[in-house]
Amino acid sequence: MKKSFLFGISVLFSLSFGLIAQEKIERWNRVELSFQTIFKGNGFQDVEFKAIFVHQDTTLTVSGFYDGDNHFKLRFMPTRLGTWKYSTQSNVPGLAKKTGTVQCIAPSTKNHGIVGTNGSLHFSYADGKVYYPFGTTAYAWNHMGAELQQLTLNSLQKSGFNKIRMCVFPKNYDLVKEEPSLYPFVLQETKRDAQGNEVKIWDYTQFNPAFFQQLEKQIDALQNMGIEADLILFHPYDKGRWGFDAMPKEVNIRYIQYLLARISSFRNVWWSMANEWDYVKSKTIADWDELTKTVVKADPYRHLCSIHGATASYYDYWKPEFSHVSVQDESPVQSPNSAAMLRNVYHKPIVLDEVGYEGNLTSRWGRYSPETMTHLIWNGVVGGTYVTHGESYMFKDHRDTIFWAKGGKFNGESWKRVGFLKQILEEGPGPMSLSDVSRDNVTSSGGKGHYLVYFGKQIQDYWMFNLPINNGAFGKLTAGTRFKVDIIDTYGMTIQTLPEIFETEKERDYRFFDKDYKKIRLPEKPYLALRIREIR
Amino acid sequence: MKKSFLFGISVLFSLSFGLIAQEKIERWNRVELSFQTIFKGNGFQDVEFKAIFVHQDTTLTVSGFYDGDNHFKLRFMPTRLGTWKYSTQSNVPGLAKKTGTVQCIAPSTKNHGIVGTNGSLHFSYADGKVYYPFGTTAYAWNHMGAELQQLTLNSLQKSGFNKIRMCVFPKNYDLVKEEPSLYPFVLQETKRDAQGNEVKIWDYTQFNPAFFQQLEKQIDALQNMGIEADLILFHPYDKGRWGFDAMPKEVNIRYIQYLLARISSFRNVWWSMANEWDYVKSKTIADWDELTKTVVKADPYRHLCSIHGATASYYDYWKPEFSHVSVQDESPVQSPNSAAMLRNVYHKPIVLDEVGYEGNLTSRWGRYSPETMTHLIWNGVVGGTYVTHGESYMFKDHRDTIFWAKGGKFNGESWKRVGFLKQILEEGPGPMSLSDVSRDNVTSSGGKGHYLVYFGKQIQDYWMFNLPINNGAFGKLTAGTRFKVDIIDTYGMTIQTLPEIFETEKERDYRFFDKDYKKIRLPEKPYLALRIREIR
Repeated sequence: MKKSFLFGISVLFSLSFGLIAQEKIERWNRVELSFQTIFKGNGFQDVEFKAIFVHQDTTLTVSGFYDGDNHFKLRFMPTRLGTWKYSTQSNVPGLAKKTGTVQCIAPSTKNHGIVGTNGSLHFSYADGKVYYPFGTTAYAWNHMGAELQQLTLNSLQKSGFNKIRMCVFPKNYDLVKEEPSLYPFVLQETKRDAQGNEVKIWDYTQFNPAFFQQLEKQIDALQNMGIEADLILFHPYDKGRWGFDAMPKEVNIRYIQYLLARISSFRNVWWSMANEWDYVKSKTIADWDELTKTVVKADPYRHLCSIHGATASYYDYWKPEFSHVSVQDESPVQSPNSAAMLRNVYHKPIVLDEVGYEGNLTSRWGRYSPETMTHLIWNGVVGGTYVTHGESYMFKDHRDTIFWAKGGKFNGESWKRVGFLKQILEEGPGPMSLSDVSRDNVTSSGGKGHYLVYFGKQIQDYWMFNLPINNGAFGKLTAGTRFKVDIIDTYGMTIQTLPEIFETEKERDYRFFDKDYKKIRLPEKPYLALRIREIR
Repeated sequence: MKKSFLFGISVLFSLSFGLIAQEKIERWNRVELSFQTIFKGNGFQDVEFKAIFVHQDTTLTVSGFYDGDNHFKLRFMPTRLGTWKYSTQSNVPGLAKKTGTVQCIAPSTKNHGIVGTNGSLHFSYADGKVYYPFGTTAYAWNHMGAELQQLTLNSLQKSGFNKIRMCVFPKNYDLVKEEPSLYPFVLQETKRDAQGNEVKIWDYTQFNPAFFQQLEKQIDALQNMGIEADLILFHPYDKGRWGFDAMPKEVNIRYIQYLLARISSFRNVWWSMANEWDYVKSKTIADWDELTKTVVKADPYRHLCSIHGATASYYDYWKPEFSHVSVQDESPVQSPNSAAMLRNVYHKPIVLDEVGYEGNLTSRWGRYSPETMTHLIWNGVVGGTYVTHGESYMFKDHRDTIFWAKGGKFNGESWKRVGFLKQILEEGPGPMSLSDVSRDNVTSSGGKGHYLVYFGKQIQDYWMFNLPINNGAFGKLTAGTRFKVDIIDTYGMTIQTLPEIFETEKERDYRFFDKDYKKIRLPEKPYLALRIREIR
């Protein structure tokens, strides 16, 4: 028997289990208890193994899992500072009644904890730091060869992305048909069907630990870069090749339980029940509801959880299992007020996880210009929502990796603009919301005295300084407030601070103008924004 | 004891109760049983009185009510053809164990029954006829003097409106402060508060039947004109004057039960739980939920039911009590695709019951041009939703009635355009839906081979014939389909049929063009639409 702790990402200590536990673990990092024991039957389904972790009035029940070769593991993420006591329960004597303590210490600088919503319209880390999701998409990057996976990580490293949508199961779809080297289940046999096609028969009672270890390694690599893994648990892009989209219900449930026992303790995972759930023909809405409840029940930490459908297919996101809305639709990003409507409807954070992609495919979902991709992301953010990036360029043929599908290199332009926008938000006081909802579709407030005005495609040679009296949840704007203005070229990625000071006079028809009706000369370009900040 | 039947709207027969009931009543018309009896206590709250109506496997429980002067009544709307048997139950001997039958016969030509949704995104009458809600707003018309009420009815008669939003309680708000002649409760005393203001003290245990009889008379008058009464049960426009916005909870519940006992049998009522529910400071969301459940429980027929909030305030419309969404928001009508988003989200019919009003007030909600009001209604309809009209012109002073407030005469222009649009829809095969949702924001399908293309503010001198391959729920468009085209001036109210025939060739990038790439010459005007109909 041994006991191991994972500090940070990659440092693994092995300690004799017999020691009095005085090991220290950062809050929201991961502890791994490891046990080797003899047992009867199938380690994946005949062994019950869990631990109760207690900290004052907090009790978390954490499932262990079989990792093959007579090894059982149990991973835990302490959510509160101080001493956690644990004791294990099992139907295998070698796993039962193990007790110990975990000493949870303050997190290091880069560790802000798990991302949550706090019941608000926005996201924040557990330590309170605001989290602005700026994600990209690489559905099957983790099923590619090792070299390509590393290239993807390198690309992400130099980008501003802090979230990635990725599938647990491999993908069989146009432009991504690679056979993975690892499978989640043990292969029982390979048959040929009546048409002569190869059909893999899986032993659904035997998970393949190597498959999950590889996934875990990459989730940790993402965490190391501050990137949340928005893990897609099911998807329709299988089409009879492996059958993971059409497994029996009890296998789906065991798969969720096994996956979550392994990785709930990773602080940077989000659960995306599906990509395009309504294209998964084998599952009904009742099935999805049951699978979602299975996820929530198996997750002691309540990681973020949503589900993604086909274009304009809105699941019942108001169900309490869903922490936020993850939707595929172009409509909400056609203007900030459309995006804002979804906030007003759901009272949850909105992530527009698929609005189309920058690229050059013939399919209309994959041929946005970089300007359009950037513009749609701005529209969503100004409306108080978040928009996921994606890139689908094919210059040669199937050897193009296409970031959207396989990862690799970014070939587009919008990915840099996403980092630029993220920096602007992070420099501000907080998340954006339309200042005067349903009336003013260009002015967004990030706090008292802090605005972004986004002009989108509109080109104009000047703008008369004016702001609405309404200011979201931040109270009304008043006369005599003084402001500085920056002109932001959202595509050119420049910020120019104007020398003038603007001062509001009395309200005129729901708005404030500068006391001298000062105007701002604008470059005659589209995609300009203004950052307007109160001088205090 | 006597028994009376209401055939149609205004014909009331009185028959001796002792007769064997062979009376015939049209389906969805109203039967009224009337009983005079002695009893002890307060007729409004001490007497339990109901009847069970049975038709084969259908059982409806219908509450009776006290109508003053020792008269108790019980009204019933037969929903199925054939014989209904009833028997009464009461704690008053003179009301208990009355039995009889009602013979329900086929409805007459103008009687299509109660409006419902059939679980769809649209409305239809109980006989299957599609109902396209084109409503207007006159919150307090029924609390004005008799002459003005008649003027309102005359105005509605000559309009195309088939729904009106109106309040049960009187309104005390800017531009409408008239003291009503009737109150729903008996006045107990009039006091003066510390500031010397008059305060009316109601006996909440005593309803005033005359108040409700007046309301009923006007609901019947509306029914006679084919107009649905979207009855607002509560509203915040009281401000301490009568106190009907802040009654004790048990009074609210008794009020609902009494009102519904009286008027559930009127086939043209809809329940609007509130106007601007979130401005009613005395009630929480839990209160609204409870009051809504009270309505549903008290309504044997399940009339349409929704709730209306302040701008961009979306109630939890997915709750099963709500048949449709009745929202105040300008955002959804800024483009058809914004409106369509709400359908996709809620999976229920969407009525945008307040998007602002045509008028000349200083408030921004009351100063749309007639063109804008018409345009917003078209945007909503093309997006597959419905938009309520309103008019708020003040030319002189408080003597202006302002249709939005008090009814009276229409002074605007958009009301005529609403009738024009309604006629276009009624001539079509069915309700509209965007043909290619989230991609094409101007083309709407009303059935296979039937389109409206709405250009809104865009002015162009020609349009090349083209339609999307997608066609909503009506299957895909195919090559070789032949069409005729009408140019509709939505504001000018003209329809011009073009002589040419257009024929689709092969699909090009998700769309079909005419085989000869024929163009249509358009008048250089905004607010044009095309009606495109397949030649079969």
